[in-house]
Amino acid sequence: MLHVKPSTLLTETHLSLLNTSFPIINIIYVYSSESSDIQIQCNSSTKKHPYSLMALTFCSTNSHHHHHHPLLPNSTKSTLYLHSTTQTPPQHHRHSGISLNIPSIISNLLHISTTRNSIPELLLTNSTNKQTPTSSPKESISSLQPELHGSANWSPLLNPLHPWLRREILKYGEFSQATYEAFDFDPFSEYCGSCLYNQSRLFEILGLTRHGYNVTKYIYAMSHVELPKWLERSLHADTWSKDSNWMGYVAVSDDAETRRIGCRDIVVAWRGTVSPSEWLEDLQGKLEPLGDHGETDAKVEHGFLSIYTSKSDTTRYNKSSASEQVMEEIKRLVAYYRGNGEEVSLTVTGHSLGGALALLNAHEAARSIPGLPVSVISFGAPRVGNEAFGDEIRDLGVKVLRVVVKQDMVPKLPGIFLNERIEKLEAVTGELEWVYKHVGLELNLNIKTSPYLKHGFDLAGFHNLETYLHLVDGYVSEQAGYRLNARRDGALVNKYSGMLRSELKIPVCWNQSANKGMVRNAYGRWVQLERAPEDIPSPHRDC
Amino acid sequence: MLHVKPSTLLTETHLSLLNTSFPIINIIYVYSSESSDIQIQCNSSTKKHPYSLMALTFCSTNSHHHHHHPLLPNSTKSTLYLHSTTQTPPQHHRHSGISLNIPSIISNLLHISTTRNSIPELLLTNSTNKQTPTSSPKESISSLQPELHGSANWSPLLNPLHPWLRREILKYGEFSQATYEAFDFDPFSEYCGSCLYNQSRLFEILGLTRHGYNVTKYIYAMSHVELPKWLERSLHADTWSKDSNWMGYVAVSDDAETRRIGCRDIVVAWRGTVSPSEWLEDLQGKLEPLGDHGETDAKVEHGFLSIYTSKSDTTRYNKSSASEQVMEEIKRLVAYYRGNGEEVSLTVTGHSLGGALALLNAHEAARSIPGLPVSVISFGAPRVGNEAFGDEIRDLGVKVLRVVVKQDMVPKLPGIFLNERIEKLEAVTGELEWVYKHVGLELNLNIKTSPYLKHGFDLAGFHNLETYLHLVDGYVSEQAGYRLNARRDGALVNKYSGMLRSELKIPVCWNQSANKGMVRNAYGRWVQLERAPEDIPSPHRDC
Repeated sequence: MLHVKPSTLLTETHLSLLNTSFPIINIIYVYSSESSDIQIQCNSSTKKHPYSLMALTFCSTNSHHHHHHPLLPNSTKSTLYLHSTTQTPPQHHRHSGISLNIPSIISNLLHISTTRNSIPELLLTNSTNKQTPTSSPKESISSLQPELHGSANWSPLLNPLHPWLRREILKYGEFSQATYEAFDFDPFSEYCGSCLYNQSRLFEILGLTRHGYNVTKYIYAMSHVELPKWLERSLHADTWSKDSNWMGYVAVSDDAETRRIGCRDIVVAWRGTVSPSEWLEDLQGKLEPLGDHGETDAKVEHGFLSIYTSKSDTTRYNKSSASEQVMEEIKRLVAYYRGNGEEVSLTVTGHSLGGALALLNAHEAARSIPGLPVSVISFGAPRVGNEAFGDEIRDLGVKVLRVVVKQDMVPKLPGIFLNERIEKLEAVTGELEWVYKHVGLELNLNIKTSPYLKHGFDLAGFHNLETYLHLVDGYVSEQAGYRLNARRDGALVNKYSGMLRSELKIPVCWNQSANKGMVRNAYGRWVQLERAPEDIPSPHRDC
Repeated sequence: MLHVKPSTLLTETHLSLLNTSFPIINIIYVYSSESSDIQIQCNSSTKKHPYSLMALTFCSTNSHHHHHHPLLPNSTKSTLYLHSTTQTPPQHHRHSGISLNIPSIISNLLHISTTRNSIPELLLTNSTNKQTPTSSPKESISSLQPELHGSANWSPLLNPLHPWLRREILKYGEFSQATYEAFDFDPFSEYCGSCLYNQSRLFEILGLTRHGYNVTKYIYAMSHVELPKWLERSLHADTWSKDSNWMGYVAVSDDAETRRIGCRDIVVAWRGTVSPSEWLEDLQGKLEPLGDHGETDAKVEHGFLSIYTSKSDTTRYNKSSASEQVMEEIKRLVAYYRGNGEEVSLTVTGHSLGGALALLNAHEAARSIPGLPVSVISFGAPRVGNEAFGDEIRDLGVKVLRVVVKQDMVPKLPGIFLNERIEKLEAVTGELEWVYKHVGLELNLNIKTSPYLKHGFDLAGFHNLETYLHLVDGYVSEQAGYRLNARRDGALVNKYSGMLRSELKIPVCWNQSANKGMVRNAYGRWVQLERAPEDIPSPHRDC
């Protein structure tokens, strides 16, 4: 039980007190359930510990609490309990609990403001003007090529953000977004977990041909580590693959784009996961040595490593691992274009879990292809490894730009307590090799800068890649607010979330297929739409 | 607090014990919330009573109850509490509560079997055969016209169900279903609450032209009685109508269909509500005299009557009431076809609330148009009025066939305690005029007969009109099971519900529009699809 005085704002310092009874606590997140209770859960990595799951429960003392959402401003006073779920829950109505202001606690923890002004009329008009282009004109940026690719750690281009760099970040962000757009999430589909379209049609169908890249290979992954909620599976017994999911793709700039940016750019885009709360629950945050033979102190999260390196002869799509698939293709492309006498660069991108895989991929590529400029542009990525892993990344010359929304919990994971900010720990334990550490440069975005976004707590909304792209599009500098001349279509924010302010009248999570893929056949019967033969995955064609 | 012995099956008799402290209890329903608790709620009609809302809460004693659905067979023992929500909730873990078997209680109350056989292979094959027609051949049925229209109360045609009558019931059921299919439920649409298509295109777009009817008029309704959750409203300030909703339509058989059935058939189809739990909460079950001047003892539920009769000069669509709109059109059609020397009949149909409105409409039509054969075919309709109202319906010669699914709660409402089964009440109170009474003949369907349907508790699924139509299509007689040669497309059951067994692999509630109506315009921006000009409602054209 955690004792705090009335009206105390809950901070990480309070939570870290848990360490006294729970040796390693490496996951913390906040969510609101259907009921009025808000829980902050901390998993101990010691699974066998009898009190391994802890919960902070904010119980509204309002008698109508079943119809009352505690994040709303009118839910004023509440009681804070800290208990293990294996213990008896507190007796809400008898307990003379400590009164706390829930909105203040949550907003303090997550840096959310609960007060705000109304949406400026100009912006509302702006956003409802539906007859303007959604992108700025393309300019030749070859004069800045090495800098835009991070050669100097992007230092002169970030504050204020150079318009050319903003445009490049959005390009890679849309390549990452494509891995979600084209993923078959439908368990009723026999191809659930695959890409909906074959690689020659992918960019055309998603409207991304304007970026001037061609997809050259699809990447599939499996995991030997049990990671529930990670793998999407078909309900059908006879499916395209029982073990693997489509995990991303390799693409390369065409001649025109190569001229524009001044370099033949190979892109690898890694798919993440849409529901952070689900896979974060399962993310044990267990560091595992990166090398097999102890040749390095580098350690990385074992779940990420498993997805990146697992393979099995009994599978159809992972007789080779994701790592082997992607490295073979990168090496092939580098050899081919270098053979043509061209300058070649590699940019690895991904959102969330995809950002973690991007870092592993960039590390491997830089180590195995000498002289190849490698950069990572990740969005909302969690920590991946320890300090030694970060040192290796830096020593290999890999440039990492981490785009991070301040309110997003995922980049705080794993290691919310044991991370790079704990400076004294090494002196105490000498075990800094077991502490997670972020790598590279951070471009820090803030939900509060955008007048289009709701500021209320929304775990999935803060983490959504379209929220990130919206904020990148409006970003000017650390000090400035959202730029008024941003052109990206704001409606996209609500494609997979409900982050847009309701005044904008854009439906929430509007991405959905007509009739969930049911179509009426010639006999008048409703049946599942069959996938076009050219889009059916094939292990011979795809990998 | 209700005291029952361990393993007692909860029945209406138990619940009626509540009457001792709560004089009139007129609503009861069972629902399962997101959490594991199952609540049976009873509203007292005395709103000011301090204990007006009662709840029976089944609390799972399973420690993992947050992840545990109590209707699943493995949730064995639970505790039954009865309490007012204004009192302190019971202390779950300390209370030595009465142990009851939840599945048995619920199944007993709702006549659901919790044990069942697996789906017969033949039926599964049958249902997955997607290359068969969805309807049986049409035959001339004019030789049985008066009987099919109910002249002899359908008595020789119901047990077993005559195939011609089954086909006619399905025809009227599809006319009722059309009022849902074509209703604009989207609050982001400025035409929310209207019909999506104009009357000349309605049947064509819904695939109903095969029935051989033409729509002649749309009916709009408003309500002076506060009925929250009844009226669908647009989020837009500038909308087609702030007060009225599209409530149904009048159609008439064409020459070919008239020859086939042997009569010029006028159909009125009334729209119901999709979420029974929502409007039932608000249904106060208050009987109101039908006539203005006390010329009759007939009383009907005041909410239904308000929707049927309300009008206001300040509205665009209800300067005349639904009653006036529909009666004017019926009279016009009857006069026109009688003027041609034709036999004319009126069939009023509707589901749920629509079935209640159908009864009011049939009553009025029979009273004001002498010699017109009037019948009602309703689906899952609640009770509408008292015994005197039922007597008037019968004396007017209106034939009523109520199609009722045994497990559906809506036909048990209003008046679950005070209904036609209370025979002794009159002797005690002399107030039978305040007791609800069903009218006409019942065709009783049973979820359990269909091998395609889940048998678990599903308030919305039991009530869904597509569930009704599926059961009508398979109905043979009171004794026989589901017929194997039923042809209606089974996938339609899941269009608005999740009643189909998962082995059939049909997505749940698959009715949805592509991207919630968002489309990409010529500038690449996602915007709300605008309605075609010819489908924009107009008070001059429509009514």
